[in-house]
Amino acid sequence: MKIGIVFGGKSFEHEISIVSAIAMKRVLKAELVYIFCDYNRDFYLIPTDKINSKRFSSGEYKKDKKLILKKGGFFQKSMMSEKRVELDIALNISHGADGEDGKMASLLEFFEIPFIGPRLEASVISYSKLFTKIYAREFGVKTLEYKTLQKSSSRDIELDYPVIVKPTRLGSSIGISIVKNRDDLDYALDVAFEFDTQVVIEPFIQGIKEYNLAGCKTETYQFSIIEEPQKEEFLDFDKKYLDFSRTKRVSEANLSDEMVEKLRDTFVKLYEPLFAGSLIRCDFFVLDGEVYINEINPVPGSMANYLFDNFDEIIANLASYLPRSTKVPAQYKYINTIGAAKGK
Amino acid sequence: MKIGIVFGGKSFEHEISIVSAIAMKRVLKAELVYIFCDYNRDFYLIPTDKINSKRFSSGEYKKDKKLILKKGGFFQKSMMSEKRVELDIALNISHGADGEDGKMASLLEFFEIPFIGPRLEASVISYSKLFTKIYAREFGVKTLEYKTLQKSSSRDIELDYPVIVKPTRLGSSIGISIVKNRDDLDYALDVAFEFDTQVVIEPFIQGIKEYNLAGCKTETYQFSIIEEPQKEEFLDFDKKYLDFSRTKRVSEANLSDEMVEKLRDTFVKLYEPLFAGSLIRCDFFVLDGEVYINEINPVPGSMANYLFDNFDEIIANLASYLPRSTKVPAQYKYINTIGAAKGK
Repeated sequence: MKIGIVFGGKSFEHEISIVSAIAMKRVLKAELVYIFCDYNRDFYLIPTDKINSKRFSSGEYKKDKKLILKKGGFFQKSMMSEKRVELDIALNISHGADGEDGKMASLLEFFEIPFIGPRLEASVISYSKLFTKIYAREFGVKTLEYKTLQKSSSRDIELDYPVIVKPTRLGSSIGISIVKNRDDLDYALDVAFEFDTQVVIEPFIQGIKEYNLAGCKTETYQFSIIEEPQKEEFLDFDKKYLDFSRTKRVSEANLSDEMVEKLRDTFVKLYEPLFAGSLIRCDFFVLDGEVYINEINPVPGSMANYLFDNFDEIIANLASYLPRSTKVPAQYKYINTIGAAKGK
Repeated sequence: MKIGIVFGGKSFEHEISIVSAIAMKRVLKAELVYIFCDYNRDFYLIPTDKINSKRFSSGEYKKDKKLILKKGGFFQKSMMSEKRVELDIALNISHGADGEDGKMASLLEFFEIPFIGPRLEASVISYSKLFTKIYAREFGVKTLEYKTLQKSSSRDIELDYPVIVKPTRLGSSIGISIVKNRDDLDYALDVAFEFDTQVVIEPFIQGIKEYNLAGCKTETYQFSIIEEPQKEEFLDFDKKYLDFSRTKRVSEANLSDEMVEKLRDTFVKLYEPLFAGSLIRCDFFVLDGEVYINEINPVPGSMANYLFDNFDEIIANLASYLPRSTKVPAQYKYINTIGAAKGK
């Protein structure tokens, strides 16, 4: 199988997407083709044997072959013809905007390139911290309480401190602050509003337990081990950045069978309605024995490979369980009927 | 101003998009350029003076110039060069899948073509009857009660008949049935599941009042008149199809000032968080003086031109009030930092 690793994009998470993409070389046995989307949204074919992070930061990638995205795939243009980049399936590993917000899913669906990754609806729901919450609640999964604030709204709000302030639509801890009292709120809001016009404010619960579980659905659900991420107050971007290059298997959290079951059941409730075709990581909170969803990562850092024993096998398998799109018959029934009625 | 009318798409509503697009010629004074997306997702430049519905149903459009969508616009290819189709702004008038589900918004955003129409998130939320409801409730707007059913779920559900069964993600009344008792439920579900894997079931309330209000935000909110659509039990696809060619101003519903204010306030609550840059039509129910949202149409049939006195002016004006996307600095801060730390 030939996998096209699609990464980059016009996004604050452009750099960590590069790191995640490079990690795939170490954990996937399939033949890989690297398709890079630069900050300018131009696509390039990066030679697999020469890929390293400096190639991008130095701009050297601009000497690589430029690609055009159109129906059926990515094409390399020469003087007289266009040659399709051969791949059996694309793996979307662009984090943040473009990759996780639904644009990459739209491009791949519209141009009919089979891919592993969240579909359009799944992307939009999980990219927004607000939509994640209302989606989760609709399907019977608990979330922490929250308030939302628009950039233009009054900041005169009642809160029980400490709180955590997050831009609604960014991952990887960008623009997030913990606020301990009213005096520090304005600065935190200013920071968050640099990145989004809307913020979500949640209680910050010291010492809340956090557990990460990744998985996908093939014949049945394939679950990873459950990790208890090591954290200080919370992982900031620099620390998370290093985190995206992880390829070493981590150790399993020490949980009762009952809690493992509960986390898996919650995962299924979130995955089932929208996430077919993707491998996601759910970040849960556990408080007084109750499970709350914090975030759904539909393109997790380094695809959460470090949580699986058989990551390579799961990806290969998932390629056969992609959702089918509804068939639309190409017909002109109404136009013809009306034409006939008018005697045309 | 030169407006690019983008229409068609791989959708059950392909034909009505053609009808809507043609109607624009009669109501917009700007120079129009017609960009057609066929069932095969190939783009064509249709001569404005020759456009008519038969051109599409007969396949004659295939003799028109084929276009390529890439950064900055739609391009016409010749032997030696590529020529950009000149337009100042695109107007997305593709109904249903591709156009209203978020794919067209993604394509136009990704390839950086300014456009009037719903953005990605707005499309995904309003395209799904379920997400519309949970979104509306989150922002303080009432909806009728509902149940959802997956294709794979048990059909053994408690309902108070009559109910209305709708595929979650289709507009224009396709696949919708009114069900008067348990005996007729299976057939209605079979029909709906032809079009979607999920259905929404709502109470069917005989004689409920329905009011349509269109509008958009420029310097301030621009509201249309409020129409009380004439209907039998409900408009089926054939009747709605004819409806999409409407260009005649309709008459205003007879409502108290208070109710007009209430409908407009509800419109604003729905429009404000997501719909900047688009002209939408909200279809409301009114029951015992309370307003409920039924549907948000982010690409309404013939752009609801027949509800406005100054449609042409509003569209021209809206072109100057498009939302801006967040600026992303093209930088390699983390990669360079880590490179430096490693002494590279």
